[in-house]
Amino acid sequence: MSTRVLDHHDTRALVRAVGIDTLMDQLTGRLTDTLASYDRERWNIPVREGFAYESPRPGLVEWMPIHDRAGDVTLKIVSYHPCNPSDHALPTILSTVGAYCTRTGRLRGLVDGTFLTALRTGAASAIATRILAHGTASRLGMIGCGAQSVTQIHGVSRVIELDEIAYFDIEPAVMATFPDRVRRLGLGKVQFRPATASEVARTADVLCTATTVGVGAGPVFPDEDLRPWIHVNAVGADFPGKTEVPRSLLDRAFVCPDFLLQAIREGECQVLDASSIGPELHEIVRAPDAFADRRGVPTVFDSTGWALEDHVALEYLFDLAEDMGLGTPIELEWRGLDPRDPYCGVADLPTEATIRTAVDPCASMGKR
Amino acid sequence: MSTRVLDHHDTRALVRAVGIDTLMDQLTGRLTDTLASYDRERWNIPVREGFAYESPRPGLVEWMPIHDRAGDVTLKIVSYHPCNPSDHALPTILSTVGAYCTRTGRLRGLVDGTFLTALRTGAASAIATRILAHGTASRLGMIGCGAQSVTQIHGVSRVIELDEIAYFDIEPAVMATFPDRVRRLGLGKVQFRPATASEVARTADVLCTATTVGVGAGPVFPDEDLRPWIHVNAVGADFPGKTEVPRSLLDRAFVCPDFLLQAIREGECQVLDASSIGPELHEIVRAPDAFADRRGVPTVFDSTGWALEDHVALEYLFDLAEDMGLGTPIELEWRGLDPRDPYCGVADLPTEATIRTAVDPCASMGKR
Repeated sequence: MSTRVLDHHDTRALVRAVGIDTLMDQLTGRLTDTLASYDRERWNIPVREGFAYESPRPGLVEWMPIHDRAGDVTLKIVSYHPCNPSDHALPTILSTVGAYCTRTGRLRGLVDGTFLTALRTGAASAIATRILAHGTASRLGMIGCGAQSVTQIHGVSRVIELDEIAYFDIEPAVMATFPDRVRRLGLGKVQFRPATASEVARTADVLCTATTVGVGAGPVFPDEDLRPWIHVNAVGADFPGKTEVPRSLLDRAFVCPDFLLQAIREGECQVLDASSIGPELHEIVRAPDAFADRRGVPTVFDSTGWALEDHVALEYLFDLAEDMGLGTPIELEWRGLDPRDPYCGVADLPTEATIRTAVDPCASMGKR
Repeated sequence: MSTRVLDHHDTRALVRAVGIDTLMDQLTGRLTDTLASYDRERWNIPVREGFAYESPRPGLVEWMPIHDRAGDVTLKIVSYHPCNPSDHALPTILSTVGAYCTRTGRLRGLVDGTFLTALRTGAASAIATRILAHGTASRLGMIGCGAQSVTQIHGVSRVIELDEIAYFDIEPAVMATFPDRVRRLGLGKVQFRPATASEVARTADVLCTATTVGVGAGPVFPDEDLRPWIHVNAVGADFPGKTEVPRSLLDRAFVCPDFLLQAIREGECQVLDASSIGPELHEIVRAPDAFADRRGVPTVFDSTGWALEDHVALEYLFDLAEDMGLGTPIELEWRGLDPRDPYCGVADLPTEATIRTAVDPCASMGKR
């Protein structure tokens, strides 16, 4: 009756053992399969809610629940504190994800969601890029060189062969260290080219934006001399008023949100009429050929971050962990002889042997 | 940069060391103080949301967030599975509670919320009973003899001297074992009297209802020959359509909800017009003398369970744990040399000594 915890060390061990390319490819594959068979009746996914504040530091704590009516409940808690890297050497985005058994309500598993979030956001962009980027695309532009940029580039690099990465960050120190982070992805002969945001956008076949631009302070690049087939993965907008892509580009582009209801509240779609917003990602994944003509026109993947992605990533990581014997059980929740007595065990805590919990009614945290 | 976990064993150890009476009294005291100084501007408390389902078993998983604008964020995940005790020897209500630092978004602490929920629900009823029950009240009625009944009786017993406890549960086995559970509270000369729901209600000065009655299946007792000063702590209604108290009693009673917005959606208040609902609990706690005349008339505390109660209980338990050196740190969330590199440490995991996290920016989980 314990909760299986995959902590930071487990995640690292798992990544080392599997390898980052296999990890990205397998998650992209699983996510593609889930999206292609997406059924609104099966999944209950509310738009995320949260608390935003300016004090003690500007930040946001959000909860992203999802109920698989054929399975369990996953709930990700994710926070966003753009001062974290410089102030505390912590990532901007921190997270934990819990898996709840719908047979008993137990917390079956708990995992570091920080790595999971970066990985699944990269995988989602890989999927959109594979379908919407131009057939000859080889030049990637990156605006915003923080943690999300690494998995954006990694994800995209698994679906198109990159010749060049042009990049810009508003912080010179972050820009200076960016090539080192990305070189560790082992992308081969790719050229790194520091540039202005405008130059980065102008030369990009595929442009990823992953910035901490403030509310009302976007866009993060101008709509000037862009390639006619530019594909943008806009992953930074995740709060009302925060946008990264110029309105004029959005107006003429094919815009594909990950999750429409959330995108019109927090994503690039918040400035658009419903009639100018394209289908959701799962719709183009289901019938990619129907969208082949979009490869020649500007396209924007409006990636606000979808709880379904978290759910798929959680199951994937737990499956790997089970195969590798990773994870630590903790006895977080109540256990005792009498489920109707909250004070049970106060006088004499029952031992492992005497507790009547013969069969765990919840499936193991991994394969089911 | 670790997360302090108070697991089931820590909670037990803490209860054993402090003693259940001191625990209930101190939490009731802290909650009274917080309610008396309640300031809407300080606290952001949304109505809880959740997933309800009938399969694989009837159940509910909910999230209850609260933001202290002068402090941190607390988020309780709580589940309700009425088949748990008989099917799995698990409590109907299971829960975990997380404390999130608003400086960094880190998960500072995580605690078993199952015991916490039972304790704080008892404390809330103690507070309402102290203000609203008749001055000579000594006969308690209990309808629903599960886990919540134990802390209901315990809480009430700390504010009025009980002579008799009449009790009813729809399950004979639960009813049969009830006196044993309650006797461990050490209530002295109190008489236990098994009875029908109707008899329990009729003789009660203070009536607590804590049932798993189904949606639309209430009330759980008839409005027949009740004492004119009856005070009801109705703690079971926690879902739209679920109610325990007869409409006619609600209509003539002074009804005090813990949290109005939630009570009109899930509590006894859902059947009432706004004009027939009294002030919230914090309002009567702030000026109890102004409500002294209500001691002579029927009163109902509509206890749906408020995130503020969870927050106060969490801080209290963590303060105790800190004093006692209880709790285990886990390294759940990301930690590494470069906060901008999700793959950092994959090749060579940094050791404790090399990680640049000199000062934890989040306050310790206990006293601040």
